[in-house]
Formats: sequence, C-alpha cells, structure tokens
Amino acid sequence: MQANDSSDTSGQAPELPERSGKKRAVPHISIQSQSNDQDSMVLGGPVQTGMTEWLKGTGEMSDVVMSSRARAARNLAGFPFPPAASSADRSQIMEICRRCIESLDRDSGTTIRWFDLRNSEPMDRRLLVERQLMSRQHARGRYANGQGGGDCPRGVAIIEPDERISILVNEEDHLRVQAIRSGLALEACLNEINRFDDGIEEIVDYAFHPQFGYLTACPTNVGTGLRLSVMVHLPALKMTGELEKVRNAASDMGLAVRGLYGEGSQAAGEFYQISNQVTLGRSDEMLLREIEGEIVPNIVRYEQHARAQLMTESPLVLEDKVFRSLGILRAARLLKPDEALEHLGLVRLGVVCKVIPEVTLQTVHSLLLLIQPGHLQRALGVELSQADRRVSRAKLVRERLGSQSR
Amino acid sequence: MQANDSSDTSGQAPELPERSGKKRAVPHISIQSQSNDQDSMVLGGPVQTGMTEWLKGTGEMSDVVMSSRARAARNLAGFPFPPAASSADRSQIMEICRRCIESLDRDSGTTIRWFDLRNSEPMDRRLLVERQLMSRQHARGRYANGQGGGDCPRGVAIIEPDERISILVNEEDHLRVQAIRSGLALEACLNEINRFDDGIEEIVDYAFHPQFGYLTACPTNVGTGLRLSVMVHLPALKMTGELEKVRNAASDMGLAVRGLYGEGSQAAGEFYQISNQVTLGRSDEMLLREIEGEIVPNIVRYEQHARAQLMTESPLVLEDKVFRSLGILRAARLLKPDEALEHLGLVRLGVVCKVIPEVTLQTVHSLLLLIQPGHLQRALGVELSQADRRVSRAKLVRERLGSQSR
Repeated sequence: MQANDSSDTSGQAPELPERSGKKRAVPHISIQSQSNDQDSMVLGGPVQTGMTEWLKGTGEMSDVVMSSRARAARNLAGFPFPPAASSADRSQIMEICRRCIESLDRDSGTTIRWFDLRNSEPMDRRLLVERQLMSRQHARGRYANGQGGGDCPRGVAIIEPDERISILVNEEDHLRVQAIRSGLALEACLNEINRFDDGIEEIVDYAFHPQFGYLTACPTNVGTGLRLSVMVHLPALKMTGELEKVRNAASDMGLAVRGLYGEGSQAAGEFYQISNQVTLGRSDEMLLREIEGEIVPNIVRYEQHARAQLMTESPLVLEDKVFRSLGILRAARLLKPDEALEHLGLVRLGVVCKVIPEVTLQTVHSLLLLIQPGHLQRALGVELSQADRRVSRAKLVRERLGSQSR
Repeated sequence: MQANDSSDTSGQAPELPERSGKKRAVPHISIQSQSNDQDSMVLGGPVQTGMTEWLKGTGEMSDVVMSSRARAARNLAGFPFPPAASSADRSQIMEICRRCIESLDRDSGTTIRWFDLRNSEPMDRRLLVERQLMSRQHARGRYANGQGGGDCPRGVAIIEPDERISILVNEEDHLRVQAIRSGLALEACLNEINRFDDGIEEIVDYAFHPQFGYLTACPTNVGTGLRLSVMVHLPALKMTGELEKVRNAASDMGLAVRGLYGEGSQAAGEFYQISNQVTLGRSDEMLLREIEGEIVPNIVRYEQHARAQLMTESPLVLEDKVFRSLGILRAARLLKPDEALEHLGLVRLGVVCKVIPEVTLQTVHSLLLLIQPGHLQRALGVELSQADRRVSRAKLVRERLGSQSR
C-alpha cells in the first residue's frame, strides 16, 4: 500500500455531474480524512461512549423512547444503483460522494471522519455497526444480489464528536444520510438529514422521478426515500401481556418492529426498533406526523400505563424482578449477550421507575453498546473467543454497575 | 387452665414399672419444665441459632457432611405401642417417661426443657420440627393408623442450650432418643443416645425380645431400634451428572435418601439425608461401621472429587454459578423456599470451595433453618401469609448475606 492522502484534491478527481439550477462547487477538503492505507482505527484507545448523543437517555419521552433515527436514501442521477453498478462506476460514485460530503457545511466544533471500508479491519467495521453508524449489510460489503465484497468501493462519513450524523456511500443506495438522537426527536433528526441532503443536492443531481419521487435500489424506499425509526423499551407491556397487541397494532399501521440490534436480532430485554416500511406516496411531513405525532406517543402511553399498573398493583413483584437482574449483573462471571440484554432491560425498567436509584440511564445505555463483541474486543485490544467475550462482558458489567465482590 | 407446676412430684405420679436387676429410683425433678397451662413458647424473643450445635459447620468432613444424627426407638414393657394404646395408657406412659427423663444425669450447664405438646401452639410445634428436634408426625400428633390428635398425650424433652439431644414421648414409639451434631459424628451421637438410653433403662423396663431385640411399633425399627442418618451436601455430583449413580448406590446398600427437610421434602439445593432403613439383625457397631466407616466417607470422597474436577476443569462456570446465586440472594425481594434452598446450596458450595470468602458456613446453615415458615413467623412474632413469608424470607436473607442496596 502506498501513502495516499485522500485530502489531496489535485488531479484525478472525477468531474462532478452537472445539475441545472444548482450551485456547483468543487468540494474543498478540509476534514480529518482516512484512507485505506492509514491505520483505519476509528476509536483508538479505550472505547468512550460519553460523547455518543443517542446514549444519553435524555429528550422527549426518554423513559420509553431510547433514541430516534431518520435516514434518507438517495442516488446520483446517471449511475446504476450500487448492486448493479460496475466496479469502475462504484469507484466514481464513491469519489463524487466523498468529495461532496467533505464540502458540506457543518456545525462549528464538529469534524467529519471519512472511512474507506475497502481493506478496513473487520473489527473496525463491527464497531461502526454496533455504534449504529452503519448497517450490517454495508459492513459485510455484500448486496442483496450477492455482489460486492471486500474490495468494493464503499465508505462511511461520520460527524464527530457526538456521532449524530453518518452518511453511507455505496451501500444499497449511493448515499444514505442518517441522523440519530436521544429520546423522541424524529423531527430534529429529519431536519438534520434534510440540511445535509440539501447541501448534497446543491452539488450533485439525484435520481428523481417527477411522479414517484426519489428513486432507490429497493422499491420500498422509492418516494421520500425516508425511513424514520425509534428504539422503544417496552418491558412493562411484556409483563402485563399486552406487548403482542401493541406489536400487532404497529404492524397493521405499516410499521416494522425489530430487535435492538436491527434486522434479524432478538428482542431480548424488550427493546424494539419501530420504523416505517414504505415511503412511496407519503410526504416527509405525513410520515413524521403519523409516527412522531401519533403512533409512538400512543405506544409510549401504553407502556407508561403498564408501568404505573405494575407499580400500583404489584410493586414487590416489580422490585423483585429488577433487583434480581441487577444482582445477577453485579455477580455473574460469564454473560451471554442475550442474557445481558434481558437483565439490562429489567434494570433499565427499575431505573426509569425510580426503584433503582443508584444506576443512571446513561450507564445502562452505554452497556447496551459496550457489551457487544466489537466493543468488548476494542476495549481489550485483542480478538476474543466467544468464551472470552462472556468473561470480559461479565467483568465490564460488574465494574460499571458496581459489583460487591471481586 | 390451672396453674400446675409440673415440677411438683407429690401424689399422683404413676408407679414406675419394675425391672429386675436394675437400679430403681424415684426421679428427682430439677429441670426447667413447662406444662400445657404455661406459655408454651420454646424460643422467646428473637430466634437465636448461635447455640444450635449442628449448625456450626464444624467437625469431620464438614465440607460435605452438614450434620449427623442417631435415634433409638424404645418402648416400655407392658404397654401397647402408642398407635394402639388407649388414651389412659398414653397418659400413663407419658408421665412415666417424663419423670424418667427428668431424673437423668446430664452434663453440667445443660438444662432439660420439657414440652407437653397437648394444646401447644402450632407455631411452637413447627419450630421444634424445623429445628430437627422432633418429627413432623409427632408435631401433627397423628399416627399412621389415623389415631391421635391434639389432646393425645405426647411430649418432647430437649437438652439445652445446644439442642444436641431430644427425647420424644408417645411418638410412634413410647420413647425416641435423638442426638444430632455437626459434621460426620455418628459415633459420638450414638454414644450420647446410649448414655441416655442406659439411664432410662436403669429406671424402666423396655419391650425387648431375646431373638429380635428391641420391639418397636413399626417392624423396620425392630432390632437395635437405631436409625443413623447424615445430612450431606452434594452439589458438585449434581453438576457433574453423577448424583443419580451415588443415590442409586446408596439405595442398593439399604439406605434411604431424602431431602433436607425429611420425608417427602424436595432435595432443592442438593441437600440429602441419608439413613439406614432396616435395623433387624444388625448390631449398632455393624451399622456404624457400615455407614460412618464406609458408605458416607465414600460419598464424601465422590463429592470432593467432583468439586476438585469442577474447580480444575471449569472454575469460571463454577464461580459464575455460585456468585449468581449469591447475587440473587442479596438482591431478591421475594423468595420461595425451594428457590432460597437452591441458591443457598450453591452459595454453600462457593463457601466450601473458597470461591466466596466473605460468607461463613454457619451463616449459610443458619439461613437453612431461619428461612423456614415457623422461624420466619417467630422472628416477626406474627402469623404470616405465604406471600408475606416470601417478603420476610428475602429480607432476612439479604440482611444476613449483606445486601448491597436497601
């Protein structure tokens, strides 16, 4: 590998596509950048979570809504969608997008960190997935059609230090702009991605159809290309047996319900990602009004009601459950991921119900992130076997929650 | 009810039966005595366990053998066995036995406490059963043939303060002398009951057949009338899957294997009472040599081997198990008896394997006693519902094991 500073803009940069009526500027590269010939560690040294905004446990309805996320799928006009694009096309797309992103206006005090995922370390990619900065699919570099691979040009830009924004290049679509925040804050997320989206659209032409809207690789994203999602915590509805009712109602309203760690993951701990499935024929405002204005507040009220019911009707049963989970987490020497999640979910319930005063929401949320394999390994700086991860996961949890012995 | 000091020996005491060649003496009553017209509380004030010898966790092989017990079944000549006796017979038997017991030599510093179980409080009877000072059958006052009842004359004498000896009157047999000690100490128990048995035999004639030996109400006790039993703790054999093998071997050798709390009780926590089933045709020495000299040491060695194996091959799995149990006991707000036993059993394993250094064996053994319904209720001085007992059991366990929070 050669030293190849990607902040060097001279020479071979592909011409930016023209778009009538839009401001056109050669991106000025003023960012912290990282190409595949540099050490591609994102999070050097001990893993920190203090700055990660969506772990703070603050914001609207944060007793139930852990975080909100908005994502816009966009594609450049004149190029095939990534799964169908040639390697040369993808390289060109990536370079256009990267330079475009680097030229965007940002808040003062923030930096954009660019990751070229080609030849990046699997551990780094895993960290980015665990931090919800990119999808598992993007980390694997494979498209639904089986194309892609380690040398396929793809990248992700992250706005640091609070990691509220990330932009994926050459995932299923050319560009996916994502914003994530604590609590119920979909409108703020949407405003944030719109700002970046507008900034990008001033530079490049998007694939856009006057009737259908933004065109995307997968038909479910055509239209606004927008996905809004919230991470909710519904342990009381689980206990009162009403969870399935709420899940079914959400499905009936066209929402997808997934586990904490996204598609295919288990819902241990009663953490659920709720998101819209279809965007065609719906405006941003309509989606926002439905999800943030009606559906999520209703789910939150159901959960709050169930919690109040548990606290009134069987406070001891609730206390017993949450303290046992805290006791196990403070005592265990081996912890599997699902079990850790389950107990962290109950501890979180104890914290928000003010039954466990000595633990903060941020501690619980941080642990949800830090107990994942990538973070455990990064914290110790070595690859760990599954058995070793159980040991270090238990140790980390004991330390963070204040174990009594050893 | 009238004030009727049972230490008054004048008058109506029935004549003691004659037995040739034996010293005959009118018992002198010098004991702390309690008749049914007095407050029949055994254990006034807060329940203490410090003096109970068999909870100390000391003695031979006490890592596996919690306690040893010997019991001799004896009957007076010339009277029907209690299940077949008339009420008048039973009254007379009781009076003879009581006065006889009261006249026995004792160690200095000890007192004999006599309980007349007629009209005694159910809570007091329950306490005596939980302290292993008498059988459940005796507490209920019913014989196998359905006879008996609350007004049936029966009693129990306890040598205080260490409660090593108790003598049951009008249980299934006229007299059952029991000794109990920490660790593997069957010979010491046997010597102790022999001493009391000899003392009694100097005063009364026992029903004895030159060919069969001591005659007893149940044919399984005929012969020496002796039952030897040990309480063993076999959690490692359970974990290594060898427990059934050991249980079957014990059965094949004519031993009964029961749960911690005696006949019909569950073996939660892997505590087992192992005792001989048949006494006919076997001398005390033969029984002792078999059980204390061979069978129990073999079982102990199996368990010790299994513990060593766990400590060597999967120390983390063992640590994880025992610390989780400790964590749950320190955290729970509601505890069912079986669950408490199960976790106390694992904590005990952690203590004897020196994995949990901060808990003593005596603390664990005391809890095995104190978590039982009678003791919980006596400690609080009120009758408790099952739900309330779960709360107070959890509270007691948290306090004794050092809970972290609240």
